[in-house]
Amino acid sequence: MTTPRADHQPDPAKGAAVKAADRAHVFHSWSAQELIEPLAVAGAQGSYFWDYDGNTYLDFSSGLVNANIGYQHPKVVAAIQEQAGRMTTFAPAYAIDVRAEAARLVAERTPGDLDKIFFTNGGAEAVENAVRMARLHTGRPKVLSAYRSYHGATSGAINLTGDPRRWPSDTASAGVVHFWGPYPYRSPFHSDSPEQECERALSHLADLIAFEGPQSIAAIILETVVGTAGVLVPPEGYLAGVRALCDRYGIVFVLDEVMAGFGRTGRWFAADHWDVVPDLMTFAKGVNSGYVPLGGVAISAEIAATFATRPYPGGLTYSGHPLACASAVATINAMREERIVENAADLGERVIGPALREIADRHPSVGEVRGMGVFWALDLVRSKETREPLVPYNPSAADNAPMGAFAAACKKNGLWPFVNMNRTHVVPPCTITEAEAKEGLAILDEALTTADGFTV
Amino acid sequence: MTTPRADHQPDPAKGAAVKAADRAHVFHSWSAQELIEPLAVAGAQGSYFWDYDGNTYLDFSSGLVNANIGYQHPKVVAAIQEQAGRMTTFAPAYAIDVRAEAARLVAERTPGDLDKIFFTNGGAEAVENAVRMARLHTGRPKVLSAYRSYHGATSGAINLTGDPRRWPSDTASAGVVHFWGPYPYRSPFHSDSPEQECERALSHLADLIAFEGPQSIAAIILETVVGTAGVLVPPEGYLAGVRALCDRYGIVFVLDEVMAGFGRTGRWFAADHWDVVPDLMTFAKGVNSGYVPLGGVAISAEIAATFATRPYPGGLTYSGHPLACASAVATINAMREERIVENAADLGERVIGPALREIADRHPSVGEVRGMGVFWALDLVRSKETREPLVPYNPSAADNAPMGAFAAACKKNGLWPFVNMNRTHVVPPCTITEAEAKEGLAILDEALTTADGFTV
Repeated sequence: MTTPRADHQPDPAKGAAVKAADRAHVFHSWSAQELIEPLAVAGAQGSYFWDYDGNTYLDFSSGLVNANIGYQHPKVVAAIQEQAGRMTTFAPAYAIDVRAEAARLVAERTPGDLDKIFFTNGGAEAVENAVRMARLHTGRPKVLSAYRSYHGATSGAINLTGDPRRWPSDTASAGVVHFWGPYPYRSPFHSDSPEQECERALSHLADLIAFEGPQSIAAIILETVVGTAGVLVPPEGYLAGVRALCDRYGIVFVLDEVMAGFGRTGRWFAADHWDVVPDLMTFAKGVNSGYVPLGGVAISAEIAATFATRPYPGGLTYSGHPLACASAVATINAMREERIVENAADLGERVIGPALREIADRHPSVGEVRGMGVFWALDLVRSKETREPLVPYNPSAADNAPMGAFAAACKKNGLWPFVNMNRTHVVPPCTITEAEAKEGLAILDEALTTADGFTV
Repeated sequence: MTTPRADHQPDPAKGAAVKAADRAHVFHSWSAQELIEPLAVAGAQGSYFWDYDGNTYLDFSSGLVNANIGYQHPKVVAAIQEQAGRMTTFAPAYAIDVRAEAARLVAERTPGDLDKIFFTNGGAEAVENAVRMARLHTGRPKVLSAYRSYHGATSGAINLTGDPRRWPSDTASAGVVHFWGPYPYRSPFHSDSPEQECERALSHLADLIAFEGPQSIAAIILETVVGTAGVLVPPEGYLAGVRALCDRYGIVFVLDEVMAGFGRTGRWFAADHWDVVPDLMTFAKGVNSGYVPLGGVAISAEIAATFATRPYPGGLTYSGHPLACASAVATINAMREERIVENAADLGERVIGPALREIADRHPSVGEVRGMGVFWALDLVRSKETREPLVPYNPSAADNAPMGAFAAACKKNGLWPFVNMNRTHVVPPCTITEAEAKEGLAILDEALTTADGFTV
């Protein structure tokens, strides 16, 4: 029942109608409503989507880095159709076959004893509930989170976030204290090696804990690999060091794997790369590639025990939604059967990483390449020597011209890039083939010539 | 592809397996994990659901008051199956046919000039975004909300909530001030008529605005008809009075129609009963009966204009999710074609209301009946004279024994009731037939004899 790419016929009149209907009634997120012109998208399949005007795009953004299994995976589509015919929705207080099975499949993959799963509709609510659990478990008020992070846009989640999206909704009294994580290429600690960066980042965090008061800190939350803020892969030893600090002071360690989880880094969870076990782990996006809204929190035995005889005071109407859970079951099973996580790891190591490093060598605008699996960033610069970002932090529209020109160059040749400030991320579906990856990398290579034009 | 009720065969072994799988890995909302025994539910159709042991229940709770169109409505199921085959998911920044069509169908029904629709995954996120819009539109920090209310469980929404679910997650610094709404049966204002209650409630709110400082108040948020906190239908003139106060002081008026909207009161929106037009209206649940997680905010022209050239700083990965929007399109169209809203109005006025009032006359435990459409509450009391609630506010498990016994008596005879503190709500699907309503009311009638046993 999926629409094969080859069958697609352009229909510009329909496209214009869809665009007009959108502009009449849809209020878009993160946008000035009259300054946007949303592309009307007609369909999507695998790693591609297409508009109504005959243009097809290779999606190097996986939507919002959620379509890990690609668009319209037939097994997941079939599972949704089958479950829709059986039971679309049912309230959270009941035992439902697919709800229990989805929880089991997630728990089977989460590290350590994170074996109880609380389902939400998405990542923000997962983070909200993880923080609530941590505060009630410890009886402490504060949460530490990182600058250069994104945790969602509800009140609690946006206050944790460490990027400009927090500013308009910031509540200084939310009990959040931000710290600096490791970022060797632009070290906040003036380090000159990943080892030194790790040591200094941990020392910074230990100091912050001491001065905020360990007894007042409920949780430290971190994206295992920082996502939208730059695909920042933690240096060896950093996560283990944070784990040790949490253990020393009875602080709950929350890893946010909303973006990094379910194959993105070439493992089921990014934490698996460093064998670190948090107390709570949030997930969403890749758990079912967003085919139906779903997120959740994986909970350690110790924290679950806190709510064994004391009610957990949180919930939502669609917690453990049957249609969403059925799509997660099908997604996880398909990823296992088709070795999709392994594909992400293999392509990252063998194709994408080497190609990006080779591209970086040739382009004066590429300051650094970092990543793993199908989770990569190119840090674009005005000069490799000074490392000055190609556009400033939180650029105005005018300041952003170089990145706008780069993105336009990608799109002109059929590649849909992920762009954030001075970076482009290479985050295609985990199902991308070697040929598709090479097709996209070639377009990216050419578009970077445009970025090169803005170097000094 | 739906499972007809008659086809269902008991399968206790499967039921036990589902229950065991649930207990192994599912962390349930609002619950002490080891003190619950979730019923394993095998299927649902129309107004009924059934377990694996051969028991069928008539659902007088519509799930969590969300399944307005009943379970497994064939047109909505078919639309989900069709859209799943076409496009399950796509990022929010694009124009998508079903996204625009869902927005149009919602905007066509919302009152006044609330014509721009921001989609979320559910009601809590809708409230979060409405409050964000109001704060940014006015540049003011505070929000007034009512005691006896529920607005969701993310940080912002739970702080607005006026029931005990707020307490464990309360942030005194959240900028929320609670006020008392009208409740003639248990008047906070010692009134002796609905007219006096209305006048005094408005005077109380005007005083609170004066003493909090009108220039500091961004929004007043109200459930149009208060839902879980008691199906409190506002007296004539109250909502118009709140609207006038908001107009006088430039305060944004937010109506939360997450539970009351989409047919529940016998109109598309409860606000239609009083011809009141808020500035923002939140919705979820009935918009697609929860078949796929969906909520949203309907936005006035004036507030939308605030974000015409200034970016709106909020969003979520699944805003305007295609599968969710397709199910909303099918739900709204089916409700219109099958006159489901009219059915709710007719049964409420002709069958349910009269029957409940007659039941109340005969049962010493029923203090008051109130409601409209398929949205009713019985306020149960120890004595009609003193109006002492049958169980205290926020009852302990021991205190709650009378309501537990009442609920058990309903279930024993095949009725699944909605129970909250000292109330039972009669909130079946809007699609319920007259015969089904009468079947449920007869069981309710008998079960109230159990409640009568606890009167003095």
